[in-house]
Amino acid sequence: MNRNQVNPHNLTWQNTSVGKRDRHNRNGHESFVLWFTGLSGAGKSTVANLLEQVLFVQGIHTYLLDGDNVRMGLNSDLGFSAVERRENIRRVAEVAKLFVDAGVVTLTAFISPYRSDRRMARSLYADREFIEVYIDCPIEVCASRDPKGLYRKAQAGQIKDFTGVAAPYEAPEQADIVLHTDRQTPWESVQQILQYLVARELLPAETLLENSRETKECPR
Amino acid sequence: MNRNQVNPHNLTWQNTSVGKRDRHNRNGHESFVLWFTGLSGAGKSTVANLLEQVLFVQGIHTYLLDGDNVRMGLNSDLGFSAVERRENIRRVAEVAKLFVDAGVVTLTAFISPYRSDRRMARSLYADREFIEVYIDCPIEVCASRDPKGLYRKAQAGQIKDFTGVAAPYEAPEQADIVLHTDRQTPWESVQQILQYLVARELLPAETLLENSRETKECPR
Repeated sequence: MNRNQVNPHNLTWQNTSVGKRDRHNRNGHESFVLWFTGLSGAGKSTVANLLEQVLFVQGIHTYLLDGDNVRMGLNSDLGFSAVERRENIRRVAEVAKLFVDAGVVTLTAFISPYRSDRRMARSLYADREFIEVYIDCPIEVCASRDPKGLYRKAQAGQIKDFTGVAAPYEAPEQADIVLHTDRQTPWESVQQILQYLVARELLPAETLLENSRETKECPR
Repeated sequence: MNRNQVNPHNLTWQNTSVGKRDRHNRNGHESFVLWFTGLSGAGKSTVANLLEQVLFVQGIHTYLLDGDNVRMGLNSDLGFSAVERRENIRRVAEVAKLFVDAGVVTLTAFISPYRSDRRMARSLYADREFIEVYIDCPIEVCASRDPKGLYRKAQAGQIKDFTGVAAPYEAPEQADIVLHTDRQTPWESVQQILQYLVARELLPAETLLENSRETKECPR
């Protein structure tokens, strides 16, 4: 639909659906996926949640896909074998693509341990639309945080296939953004992501730069 | 997050994600799913597309899930057996729920021929959030329209499990909205849906009523 067709009087019988570009124009920003990957406890959800709140405040349309709203619903039929992890990631990537099509800045926070699965996810998108964010944090730090007590259970053999303990994590070789949450605060991580997005003109510069100044003054 | 927390200065380390209510407040409308069901050729996509365009013009945040963007992506691994149709509908219902959680008025346009599957879909939602829209159109009319040539192929035995020909369609017994597209124009169908939504205060009254007046004057 071009702008003239936005008036209902000009709507025709043709199948002129509302498209991604129309939504970008309306929302005032592009849509893309920020694909967070990293070990359990690395800080994926913490950084993604904080980023979503910062973006929401600035009027950016966002949605966060994570274990809570996906593993318990859409992917409740899947376990944690390599095959099921792959299908988990495939579905997340396809759903995130629908959100991107809907004009939404989409954040996904899944361990997504296999390089080939992340490559498959990326292949669904145009270049600018897929941004891999590697939360690089040493496993010792993740295990000492152990926010859900999972490392303790995994080391006791109570969880099988636990990434980093009994299943591999294949670190990205060319992530678009690398965050070191063992020595960065979540605010610093969020700022680094915002700077990336603004530099690539994926989000409006003025809004984000203003926020960047603000968040520098935030108490930590 | 309450209103005070929308300021980044008040954001805390707590896991206070942006919630559905925050999105409703920001968007200025509630979110829910309009679940279109009916035979192939009944007019599900036509009505849903027109409705989405009318809503988009009015600033409502919408997304349409249909065969084109779901069967070719997320559900590309599924065929058309009863079991696979059920899984197709389950996933669509779960994805639509994510969109509703994201504050989006979500339209789904799938034949969804089985009562039990639609009941399962409805069970995922709060009462006000799931609106079943039955596109009631005699199969003779659908077959004579045959926009994709599917009835012709099904009658020639070239498509198996085709709903209405070789597989059952179980009509809703208590749909929230029933449209008769054999004797209603798409505009009339859209108006009927808008009136339902406004009557239940699911969408802002003033905007929609104004549009209803406008569309009455539209050429058909």
